[in-house]
Amino acid sequence: MFEARLVQSSILKKVLDAIKELLNEATFDCSDTGIQLQAMDNSHVSLVSLNLRSDGFDKYRCDRNISMGMNLASLAKIMKCASNDDVLTMKAQDNADTVTFVFESANQDKVSDYEMKLMNLDQEHLGIPDTDYACIVKMPSAEFARICRDLAQFGESVVIACTKEGVKFSTSGDIGSANVKLAQNANVDKEEESVTIEMQEPVTLNFACRYLNSFTKATPLSPTVQLSLSHDVPLVVEYKIGDIGFIRYYLAPKIDDEEN
Amino acid sequence: MFEARLVQSSILKKVLDAIKELLNEATFDCSDTGIQLQAMDNSHVSLVSLNLRSDGFDKYRCDRNISMGMNLASLAKIMKCASNDDVLTMKAQDNADTVTFVFESANQDKVSDYEMKLMNLDQEHLGIPDTDYACIVKMPSAEFARICRDLAQFGESVVIACTKEGVKFSTSGDIGSANVKLAQNANVDKEEESVTIEMQEPVTLNFACRYLNSFTKATPLSPTVQLSLSHDVPLVVEYKIGDIGFIRYYLAPKIDDEEN
Amino acid sequence: MFEARLVQSSILKKVLDAIKELLNEATFDCSDTGIQLQAMDNSHVSLVSLNLRSDGFDKYRCDRNISMGMNLASLAKIMKCASNDDVLTMKAQDNADTVTFVFESANQDKVSDYEMKLMNLDQEHLGIPDTDYACIVKMPSAEFARICRDLAQFGESVVIACTKEGVKFSTSGDIGSANVKLAQNANVDKEEESVTIEMQEPVTLNFACRYLNSFTKATPLSPTVQLSLSHDVPLVVEYKIGDIGFIRYYLAPKIDDEEN
Repeated sequence: MFEARLVQSSILKKVLDAIKELLNEATFDCSDTGIQLQAMDNSHVSLVSLNLRSDGFDKYRCDRNISMGMNLASLAKIMKCASNDDVLTMKAQDNADTVTFVFESANQDKVSDYEMKLMNLDQEHLGIPDTDYACIVKMPSAEFARICRDLAQFGESVVIACTKEGVKFSTSGDIGSANVKLAQNANVDKEEESVTIEMQEPVTLNFACRYLNSFTKATPLSPTVQLSLSHDVPLVVEYKIGDIGFIRYYLAPKIDDEEN
Repeated sequence: MFEARLVQSSILKKVLDAIKELLNEATFDCSDTGIQLQAMDNSHVSLVSLNLRSDGFDKYRCDRNISMGMNLASLAKIMKCASNDDVLTMKAQDNADTVTFVFESANQDKVSDYEMKLMNLDQEHLGIPDTDYACIVKMPSAEFARICRDLAQFGESVVIACTKEGVKFSTSGDIGSANVKLAQNANVDKEEESVTIEMQEPVTLNFACRYLNSFTKATPLSPTVQLSLSHDVPLVVEYKIGDIGFIRYYLAPKIDDEEN
Repeated sequence: MFEARLVQSSILKKVLDAIKELLNEATFDCSDTGIQLQAMDNSHVSLVSLNLRSDGFDKYRCDRNISMGMNLASLAKIMKCASNDDVLTMKAQDNADTVTFVFESANQDKVSDYEMKLMNLDQEHLGIPDTDYACIVKMPSAEFARICRDLAQFGESVVIACTKEGVKFSTSGDIGSANVKLAQNANVDKEEESVTIEMQEPVTLNFACRYLNSFTKATPLSPTVQLSLSHDVPLVVEYKIGDIGFIRYYLAPKIDDEEN
């Protein structure tokens, strides 16, 4: 028996929005520590890693480990049926081939249940080694999304150059070139609005713009985002999910002339 | 001479939105008791019945009965030109082949008139027998619209099952199955938000989802909707139109395996 | 060296919106008196004339006259990257083949620069003779936009008839006919909401609706619009641009049966 209850059902809606552009289907691995999902995107370039801890749920029970393969377009249809103040419960029997989503309205006068067929999906668990990163940038997630969206108009790849003073995003293409510079500013009033950089050594790396843009679909999950960069290892783009977990995206740098 | 004046011109806009998905053209029958419209939808499955009483208008004069066939797409173009606080006057001469819509702004500095050609349409007046219904459900119209929209994602037909305790809407399809249960709750603070059921005997009936969804285009007309159900007679979905009248939609149940 | 600084970068965004439907590319002529643009629209029917005075900028320097040909779709991509409270600086070297747009955030923690390649465009400077107009109508720009949009649903051309009492816009087509009458009302509380007419003699002229609709893309630039009409000369539709200049559109009347 698996059962997980979340008073804030909107969290699961936002998680789904954060992955469904990259993944058509995915396996949710449920154990007594929580729910995990790890998958390469549809074009096998970037990696998505989601972690929702069991203690972050309002109720959580998982008698036996269970892997639930889901079509994310179908799951999105179901989540669209939840109102923002509905309480969500996911349920599955051991060895079940379906999962049930129950939405209860705040006053409990409306109860909806949606039963979805599960899929058998190939699993690929990639070990992600711990790495000391040359630069770790924390910045407002909306600002990161804005920059990725703006630069995507001009070029296919974005160079991220990080120094103690700040971080610069650059691109160029047929129209011309574009540079966006953010200064480190730890002293702003609200921590969420600050740009901070932990630097071991400066880095300049080049990434495919369209994947960065897909990662920013997670923006509604968190007011801040953390970028971890080092030469020759994938960039990590991490969004915290309230007190319940995180979503991380991994993307290898492009090896080409634009990278210095 | 026919002349009808409506200070709240937005009512006619909403009436038009409530019928133009089902009907391409329609005949408005004007008499001294008011304006009536009755028509099968374009695919001849459901029936629309509209009634606007003469005493609901701010001024109303109809010397001779007149039937005005209108193209509803053309009428919609005209109604789009009305601002929400415009005063509307419809005018036609006896035996005229045009109708004129006059919109006056609140301060009368702007006066617009639109003259539209009328059409000769075949008329089919269907007698609708009075029926005692097994169940009459009153519920918030926005909730009904939400449920029809949600379930349409999963299946083509919706089973409505009504008992003393509440009403259940169900469907199923390729993705899986869905059930939405509303409990009777006459005791909520606002009458408009309550779900009430007058039951002679329980009923379970099956309806084509797409017609229910078309009916819910009338949602802006009224905060509540009334569903009248009995075995072997059409469902009636009724929206009151302020103090001026009502719109009713009739839809026969599907006869198939899913109906119990 | 050319450099122009505008604290309200949103003005340039709105100017661009006001011309990009009519023009694919355009030459901005910069001199020490300011920036001017004059061009026939893509179909060579109407004329756009833009004037931004140097003293309207927060900083302005133009050592040598410079004509900068720009692709307006590319420029629109760059302007989309400006936040509404960004400060904008345009820069170009003498004889340069690029122009640079710098956007600085209010707190200066974010600085973006976009360099765009310039184009060589054929120039056609048309002399516009001074004219005494038979009628000059001032009216709320949103009202003019609304009327042009409404009437475009019914016909391809709009007759504007102006007398001392007011101005009437008329059209007709397959559906029927439409007339919108505005009374002169100089006495309303807010000058921006008034309709005023300076008349030497009444005029009735006929114009192509689609061009009028393109002109109304300038509506966000100003709360009022001025229409100057005389027989046998082009209509002038003028929007003031704050304290910095104006945009004027010229459109010749249609010569046909509908014109009286």
